[in-house]
Amino acid sequence: MSDKKLNVGMIGCGFMAKTHSNAYSNVAHFFDVPFTPVLKTVCDLNAERAAAFAAKWGYENVESDWRKVVADPAIDLIDICLPNNLHAEVAIAAAEAGKAVVSEKPLARTAAEAEPMVAAVEKAGVPNFVSFNYRRIPAVALAKQIIDSGKLGKIFHYRANFLQDWTINANVPQGGKDTWRLNVKEAGSGVTGDLLAHCIDLAIWQNGPVKDVTALTETFVKERKNAVTGVMEPVGIDDACTFLCRFANGSLGNFESTRYARGHKALFTFEINGEHASIRWDLHDLHRLQFFDHGDEGTVRGWRSIHVSDGDQPYMGKWWVPGLAIGYGESFIHQFKEFLEGMACGKPAAPTFRDALETNRVCDAVLASAASGQWVTV
Amino acid sequence: MSDKKLNVGMIGCGFMAKTHSNAYSNVAHFFDVPFTPVLKTVCDLNAERAAAFAAKWGYENVESDWRKVVADPAIDLIDICLPNNLHAEVAIAAAEAGKAVVSEKPLARTAAEAEPMVAAVEKAGVPNFVSFNYRRIPAVALAKQIIDSGKLGKIFHYRANFLQDWTINANVPQGGKDTWRLNVKEAGSGVTGDLLAHCIDLAIWQNGPVKDVTALTETFVKERKNAVTGVMEPVGIDDACTFLCRFANGSLGNFESTRYARGHKALFTFEINGEHASIRWDLHDLHRLQFFDHGDEGTVRGWRSIHVSDGDQPYMGKWWVPGLAIGYGESFIHQFKEFLEGMACGKPAAPTFRDALETNRVCDAVLASAASGQWVTV
Amino acid sequence: MSDKKLNVGMIGCGFMAKTHSNAYSNVAHFFDVPFTPVLKTVCDLNAERAAAFAAKWGYENVESDWRKVVADPAIDLIDICLPNNLHAEVAIAAAEAGKAVVSEKPLARTAAEAEPMVAAVEKAGVPNFVSFNYRRIPAVALAKQIIDSGKLGKIFHYRANFLQDWTINANVPQGGKDTWRLNVKEAGSGVTGDLLAHCIDLAIWQNGPVKDVTALTETFVKERKNAVTGVMEPVGIDDACTFLCRFANGSLGNFESTRYARGHKALFTFEINGEHASIRWDLHDLHRLQFFDHGDEGTVRGWRSIHVSDGDQPYMGKWWVPGLAIGYGESFIHQFKEFLEGMACGKPAAPTFRDALETNRVCDAVLASAASGQWVTV
Amino acid sequence: MSDKKLNVGMIGCGFMAKTHSNAYSNVAHFFDVPFTPVLKTVCDLNAERAAAFAAKWGYENVESDWRKVVADPAIDLIDICLPNNLHAEVAIAAAEAGKAVVSEKPLARTAAEAEPMVAAVEKAGVPNFVSFNYRRIPAVALAKQIIDSGKLGKIFHYRANFLQDWTINANVPQGGKDTWRLNVKEAGSGVTGDLLAHCIDLAIWQNGPVKDVTALTETFVKERKNAVTGVMEPVGIDDACTFLCRFANGSLGNFESTRYARGHKALFTFEINGEHASIRWDLHDLHRLQFFDHGDEGTVRGWRSIHVSDGDQPYMGKWWVPGLAIGYGESFIHQFKEFLEGMACGKPAAPTFRDALETNRVCDAVLASAASGQWVTV
Repeated sequence: MSDKKLNVGMIGCGFMAKTHSNAYSNVAHFFDVPFTPVLKTVCDLNAERAAAFAAKWGYENVESDWRKVVADPAIDLIDICLPNNLHAEVAIAAAEAGKAVVSEKPLARTAAEAEPMVAAVEKAGVPNFVSFNYRRIPAVALAKQIIDSGKLGKIFHYRANFLQDWTINANVPQGGKDTWRLNVKEAGSGVTGDLLAHCIDLAIWQNGPVKDVTALTETFVKERKNAVTGVMEPVGIDDACTFLCRFANGSLGNFESTRYARGHKALFTFEINGEHASIRWDLHDLHRLQFFDHGDEGTVRGWRSIHVSDGDQPYMGKWWVPGLAIGYGESFIHQFKEFLEGMACGKPAAPTFRDALETNRVCDAVLASAASGQWVTV
Repeated sequence: MSDKKLNVGMIGCGFMAKTHSNAYSNVAHFFDVPFTPVLKTVCDLNAERAAAFAAKWGYENVESDWRKVVADPAIDLIDICLPNNLHAEVAIAAAEAGKAVVSEKPLARTAAEAEPMVAAVEKAGVPNFVSFNYRRIPAVALAKQIIDSGKLGKIFHYRANFLQDWTINANVPQGGKDTWRLNVKEAGSGVTGDLLAHCIDLAIWQNGPVKDVTALTETFVKERKNAVTGVMEPVGIDDACTFLCRFANGSLGNFESTRYARGHKALFTFEINGEHASIRWDLHDLHRLQFFDHGDEGTVRGWRSIHVSDGDQPYMGKWWVPGLAIGYGESFIHQFKEFLEGMACGKPAAPTFRDALETNRVCDAVLASAASGQWVTV
Repeated sequence: MSDKKLNVGMIGCGFMAKTHSNAYSNVAHFFDVPFTPVLKTVCDLNAERAAAFAAKWGYENVESDWRKVVADPAIDLIDICLPNNLHAEVAIAAAEAGKAVVSEKPLARTAAEAEPMVAAVEKAGVPNFVSFNYRRIPAVALAKQIIDSGKLGKIFHYRANFLQDWTINANVPQGGKDTWRLNVKEAGSGVTGDLLAHCIDLAIWQNGPVKDVTALTETFVKERKNAVTGVMEPVGIDDACTFLCRFANGSLGNFESTRYARGHKALFTFEINGEHASIRWDLHDLHRLQFFDHGDEGTVRGWRSIHVSDGDQPYMGKWWVPGLAIGYGESFIHQFKEFLEGMACGKPAAPTFRDALETNRVCDAVLASAASGQWVTV
Repeated sequence: MSDKKLNVGMIGCGFMAKTHSNAYSNVAHFFDVPFTPVLKTVCDLNAERAAAFAAKWGYENVESDWRKVVADPAIDLIDICLPNNLHAEVAIAAAEAGKAVVSEKPLARTAAEAEPMVAAVEKAGVPNFVSFNYRRIPAVALAKQIIDSGKLGKIFHYRANFLQDWTINANVPQGGKDTWRLNVKEAGSGVTGDLLAHCIDLAIWQNGPVKDVTALTETFVKERKNAVTGVMEPVGIDDACTFLCRFANGSLGNFESTRYARGHKALFTFEINGEHASIRWDLHDLHRLQFFDHGDEGTVRGWRSIHVSDGDQPYMGKWWVPGLAIGYGESFIHQFKEFLEGMACGKPAAPTFRDALETNRVCDAVLASAASGQWVTV
């Protein structure tokens, strides 16, 4: 472990705080990172909840006012694991206090809300990063290597899905600790900002900018009880969203996300069809990459199912031995490894706030198109 | 075999004529059909080609003028296996001559072209049928049984793909015997009429009418040599087409087809997500149906991979023994079994010309939307 | 179709007679064979059953005494689709009558019973063939091409399974038309002669001779009702058989077959591990071959799932178009295509009676080892 | 985290020490364990190596003489991650010193070597455990729940494989830090003790005792260089081992392991066929369980692919959210959670040393049978 410590102030203690805390705890066990993260302070409005989280993960301090964490000179990094509507205020304050800032995705509810965040971190010159963790799944990182190698040739098609089924039951409430993602005020949108944001982040990274979109959204359950107040309220989010697009490189995109696809828990998939080769991946078997190379000898050509667990494949040299897979949690370890290295070498790891702003722009265009019934330019 | 003979006049002798001839030859070997088809006459403008085809399949007569076949009193059924632009004229003449008529799909290049065909067969009161053969793949027929049983509950999503990769090479010509599907004059459209028509036929059958669509098409290769004249000509077809839609039942549709998806030869897939269960299927493993039933006990729930080869599954009781699969060609045997039974019992097998007209209407809406950039009502 | 006719006398009219009749009916539709088979006579002890079969398949004549068919000068080929105990007598008589002879597998119940059959056909100099049809599944034929190309290098392991579940129910009877395979007198053995014979035939063809074996058999249901007499009788067959072996080439073999593997209808699999590459296949997805080539670039190496449906893959150029699969029945069409070509060119198609005798010898060694608890040399 | 600390003395710092250290570091983050493990001391003959390991994982002390660690009163638990030949001496000393003892698998090179270890821990009355970690893969734990529920009914077949390909290259040396598994003196045997031991441990746990075996082994590469001395030496281990067996419950077993199966990195599989249902699993997709239930409605029966990531499935309620998989490393976290709970409640977690002795006995019988060519009773 490096002797240089990096003191983390964690804002929020829900599911994402757990993934990040696990990553900070373990990154130096597996990678030679330039800083050793220290779990310094965890903050939640509910102090009891924060204390329980601190006990579990070994945070040294507990706080219920995030402004105090931001103001604490012992803190080097503010990590924002809050509902989307709270990202901006905390991030801007953290930047102004000169802290490095990590935000959960999406950066904000809208591009308009995200822009001042980008301005703040850039003005302050602080390291900044958005947790689009799927870039650091080894199979996804391998896909990026293949794309960058030029093996695919000219790209014709990009398609991605993110299918879940957890809100089919109309009794699932909206708002509150576990279900803020169904509350439009907190989340900004439904599957678009939650799930399609992941798809779009990967798509831009792998295939370049999106030019324009035509979209369709639906809210299948029109009213849900508010988990905090117990009052039935109209549902403001999109339960499902699907869109078509043109990429700047001339390829066509097809995206779909829903929380109403019975049988799929978190089926995040992408497929890219190029002139010479194609790749596809899905989160349900995250350690495999499917690769078809038309350059293979004709009669024995086929989709290769690559078990991404060899030492020469991304990240895997630091884990176990060939054939032994890692899981979802490890993607966060990888992303903080990249972030820490970026901090040390001055070449910031992507996606920065600025990178993530572009994803917010595409999400905005998608929702605008769904609302207007028109093609919308990003 | 039934003693009642049904004399077939086959118009065309390309790939589809082969699939149909095989079906007529074998249907009475496996099923107790009310008529035994007799391969009476095969017709092609190129008499030599027709003669070779006749020798191969055992047709009794060869003809080069389809009007003579239509006029032949010995012929009971005219089967049209011609490029799309020729369906209408032959079908209308056959109906007027009082023949039963089978047409390859799509019924015509456009709904406008198809309408008089429907009028003609209905006026003449002759049996009529369009060869959307995929309805008779056993796994697809089983899917229909599951849908009709109500097991899926309210439907949220329908998605379908038909992905190929055979025209990526810019040297593939357009027009002529083997490549008329690339020539807009003969085919009417590209993947929309050729491949999406299959997806749409199944979708309407399984999930009901399509209300409106927004679509995107692309022609990746702008010019191709004409296979007959050798002259380079602009390509008029859609190489790829993808569209979103709303179904009348409130579910959302997502469709995509292309001939530029490297690695996929004929990946026709559909998936339906209902409140209680989901199903999916793909043509590359046509003998399997994937089925997820949320009613299964929680901890051991999973997608079931159903090997559709048991005697109590559609059509399979007449083939081999459990575990032994059949292929693509057999779907035509099943469809003509249904058609022959429909003729005998007076309850016409679907899709009739009128059923297939609806698919043409959706295709027209898709192409109109792609051209205008607007949502189009079917 | 060739003008040279080959008149077939079919002895038996059960399941295998159906597969063979279908093959004879269709082989000339798809392949340019030197003889066109004619379904001349079908024979069954039960004349009514034979008549029904003849009506279905178009046999010209019906017979209930196989000796008359063998004696009929109009018959060119005797095809034996009878229970195993009846193969020898018919085959020897047919050979002595100068007929070509095809026998269903296994050639006989034991090697001792098979030897005079080999002697008879060789003495008579008549074409002879045993219907180990799985050699002619396109994916299996492609596997053989890969093996013969040397791509695998030195072979280390061969493993094969044939798993079914149809006799778990103790009420399934033994003996009679549909269940003679459970009657040791008719079948000679259980899964060994019925299923492992297929595994062994492929193994010898692909990997060379078997040297010695150690085996284990079990009869899970000890008594079954005789389907003909209704009397409960001890079960004499092996319900399950598994054995280890050494091949002459130094590789190790592992084989298992059972009719008690719940969930598997006909899961016939093989896998070969060589120094440089491996292949595997299973009958439940018979149109796919799995191929791993260690020569592929390291980071993108994986098992290739080859969809064997392209025109340059074995047999497939004569069927449909890429991506469209064929089934089990078609393997018989291919095998008779090979047999007919072998007859014409004087290079007999394998497996001949002599080839198949070797499979009987291995089966005998397996059963002897299971009985003695000792390793047995083949 | 519990206030009760458990001080760990880790003996060895190779690959297994890494998996165990990761587990001790993280178990209290995810589970409410009665003791919080403290990484107190790590020991390796090579002090520099131990120091580097300690720095990485946060061990407080470094030692090069394991006897000092055993003698240290601050140490509560001795964890043995050494080559197999060193397990016995350390374990016995640790037991005699009154420490809890964890040993990597197999317990010893032979049952004879293991017996005094069992005697020592039982005499001392210390907690003891052998790291057969695969029992704690969630899908494997779910399989055990299914078996214990009686859903399978009477068991007919058990089959297991453990296939690797990492020693095909004859230049891989034997002996030394990374390749002691190829040195018979250190390892005791090859794939039998290394890989089949895992298969046998699961088999006994799931299916009960093994009665007798017939086995076949092979050493494909006869000589390898010693990694320490550089001298070419005969290879004493089994490169491949396959055996058949009878279980006490009447079912048949088939096992195979090799390091010469090109294309398989760590393909550990098992399948159990029961009267009513079957299950199978493989390590390459460790988060999935395949389950076939014959009780499902006939036409929609199929193998269910269960994505074991739901909160009500074993261990998964403590990890992420449904659909998000965990990996290999987490199985050690689970096993130490079980071990710690067993220590606290006085109901020792399995497999104890006594449980693991039985696996050594089966391994001995397998090797004896391979040597003698006879069936051997366990």
